[in-house]
Amino acid sequence: MLIVQKYGGTSVGSFDRIRNVANRVKALRDEGHDVAVVVSAMGGVTDQLIGMADQLCSNPPAREMDVLLSTGEQQSIALVTMALHAVGVDAVSVTGRQAGMTTSGSHTRARIHKIDSSLSRRYLSEGKVVIAAGFQGVNEEGLIQTLGRGGSDLSAIAFASSVGADLCQILTDVDGVYSADPRVVPEARKLPEISYDELLELASVGTKVMQSRSVEFAKKYDVKFEVCSSLNNNPGTIVTEEHEAMEAAVIRGVSIERSQARVTITGIPDEPGMSAQILSALGDDEINIDMIVSNIAHDGYARHSFTMHTNDLGRAQASLKPVLANLGPEAKLETEAAIAKLSVVGIGMRSHSGVAAQMFKALGQAVINIGMISTSEIKISITVDETNIEDAARVVHGAFGLDSAPTEP
Amino acid sequence: MLIVQKYGGTSVGSFDRIRNVANRVKALRDEGHDVAVVVSAMGGVTDQLIGMADQLCSNPPAREMDVLLSTGEQQSIALVTMALHAVGVDAVSVTGRQAGMTTSGSHTRARIHKIDSSLSRRYLSEGKVVIAAGFQGVNEEGLIQTLGRGGSDLSAIAFASSVGADLCQILTDVDGVYSADPRVVPEARKLPEISYDELLELASVGTKVMQSRSVEFAKKYDVKFEVCSSLNNNPGTIVTEEHEAMEAAVIRGVSIERSQARVTITGIPDEPGMSAQILSALGDDEINIDMIVSNIAHDGYARHSFTMHTNDLGRAQASLKPVLANLGPEAKLETEAAIAKLSVVGIGMRSHSGVAAQMFKALGQAVINIGMISTSEIKISITVDETNIEDAARVVHGAFGLDSAPTEP
Repeated sequence: MLIVQKYGGTSVGSFDRIRNVANRVKALRDEGHDVAVVVSAMGGVTDQLIGMADQLCSNPPAREMDVLLSTGEQQSIALVTMALHAVGVDAVSVTGRQAGMTTSGSHTRARIHKIDSSLSRRYLSEGKVVIAAGFQGVNEEGLIQTLGRGGSDLSAIAFASSVGADLCQILTDVDGVYSADPRVVPEARKLPEISYDELLELASVGTKVMQSRSVEFAKKYDVKFEVCSSLNNNPGTIVTEEHEAMEAAVIRGVSIERSQARVTITGIPDEPGMSAQILSALGDDEINIDMIVSNIAHDGYARHSFTMHTNDLGRAQASLKPVLANLGPEAKLETEAAIAKLSVVGIGMRSHSGVAAQMFKALGQAVINIGMISTSEIKISITVDETNIEDAARVVHGAFGLDSAPTEP
Repeated sequence: MLIVQKYGGTSVGSFDRIRNVANRVKALRDEGHDVAVVVSAMGGVTDQLIGMADQLCSNPPAREMDVLLSTGEQQSIALVTMALHAVGVDAVSVTGRQAGMTTSGSHTRARIHKIDSSLSRRYLSEGKVVIAAGFQGVNEEGLIQTLGRGGSDLSAIAFASSVGADLCQILTDVDGVYSADPRVVPEARKLPEISYDELLELASVGTKVMQSRSVEFAKKYDVKFEVCSSLNNNPGTIVTEEHEAMEAAVIRGVSIERSQARVTITGIPDEPGMSAQILSALGDDEINIDMIVSNIAHDGYARHSFTMHTNDLGRAQASLKPVLANLGPEAKLETEAAIAKLSVVGIGMRSHSGVAAQMFKALGQAVINIGMISTSEIKISITVDETNIEDAARVVHGAFGLDSAPTEP
């Protein structure tokens, strides 16, 4: 089997951890697998380099930040390769450029444009382990670019796709994707399997396992990957294209987001263009809004509610002040902080009816009041008072049977 | 004027020093010059990286050492470029690869094979300052290689040649080439000018200004360069092709080497192949020998003397033991430690006679005994007791009039 593993900064954050990576790779080799490894910079190194840049320039050019930051992974690949030699494994490093990662777009947040992994494939065919630098590539001009947040995961998925890996393992400090945050819901269970779409929805509502861009890339190129721990050998969570057996579970997971605030504007004339005015004002000020609910009240005026992070509430009020004056004399703004968002996600929703009703009933029995409601094809999100969010998560988790052992796919 | 400057590790060894480099470059720009800069890794960084490698692997592969070490210069070029932006100078960094440095030979001690500086020339023509990584390049396979000791000087000379620079300045912590080591000869003077050959001879006898390979490269491609200080603006020493005015000075400089030892083998049958036996034994054991003097003694046997560093004396004796047995019953080995070597160098020797006599007379008057003597076209080397070496240097320095102001070229 050809396995691509990705180790993040924490997993290569010390000499001992680098040796641990080498031993894990050696174990796979001893089992007869071909192995390629994508690594991040050693934990803390990227921040240290950013600190150095800040010392010299208040606004360092992005082109040079990429030249600087890419040294972090270049050091990691050399060190991991050396550690493999020390345990008798024949390995070679490849930089982003040597891995054939061609990027496009802006410095410090480039996109992967294409990959030519012929050098890596040659090394693999010679029986070598390939250690590739994540997070970096070169654009068509030959300039070094980095991929921004979550870039190393993306490198690994893209690299796995390009070399035709049988499996891509994302090794991290969590050992998989859980049905809920175990710190909030002690009954949460590690999911053996989840679909790309479910992980994307969970990622968008606060489950910080992977950046959406990597999951989207994996979905687009059909790269099956596993999220697992670099510190033990437990099976992780396989992320894959959805298949029929997955629909047996109505809900895959429950996710929460705290520190939310709600803004409601009432008394909006029911005319075209009103929503656009409101949303563009917020967009112009780069305020991210999340849930949007709007309807016509019985007084004939429209009302819009939307949520955002509490930190943005002050800026949002300032941003909306001139808009409000524009909307006419009846327009009023109400705000509510200290709320939180609860979402349930599952592709099983498509084929099961009554999911929302089941959720609301469970919350009602627990005397938890529901604020806003918003739904997508495979997700239902609600807001509750922040003080209720942990109870709500536990109640919903139990109501959908997630406390019991997961159905094996 | 197009000026290429090279700053060593000490000159970019702290944020303040990097800012100093930026200000110096800005000053040149303000004078209307085009500027390209070749930089080394920040002082100490290379050793730190070597230390990291040693932690992980007792014998790290050279290919990976190059990947690791080359990050040192890559960080420097980004940081220097940022410091230039901070003072309002438009600058771009280029790695060894981007500078078009193609290398060949072994990892960690590669040679420059060819240079394609078209990208750098494009940037220069756009009015940008180019900051290029010294010490590194890529071979024809696309693998990163480093140039070994003195590599950054070599990069600078080669880069200057390739972009057609009017002057290449090697900025360092000494402010030029002196007629002698000022710590030994207080009357030593900075030379305004020296020929490639003279610097090569001085370098070979212990004047640690530059590695010979860089000077040889400059000579081969006729790159005029200046050795000067990065800490002040004093004119340094111009190193250039020799010209007639240079011959006015009989001697350019005096150089000493301490901690030398002499080995003499007597009673060698006067037959072909005897010297070869001795020298190959030492060569096989990688013992560097320096001066070689041999002649036939009045007893009809040959005698060979050679010098080496004292540290090698023990190994040399061990290495020669079996050879001695081979040379026959009369062969004997004598050693003498605690000697030192004094050399005078000057292309003026070619056109002036009696230089050796003048030197020996001065030493005789000072009652300094001469051991071995060896001469080349532009150099005379002698050995003296180590306790006499400083006196000898001062005596010879004075005897050739080097104490007075140098003749302007």
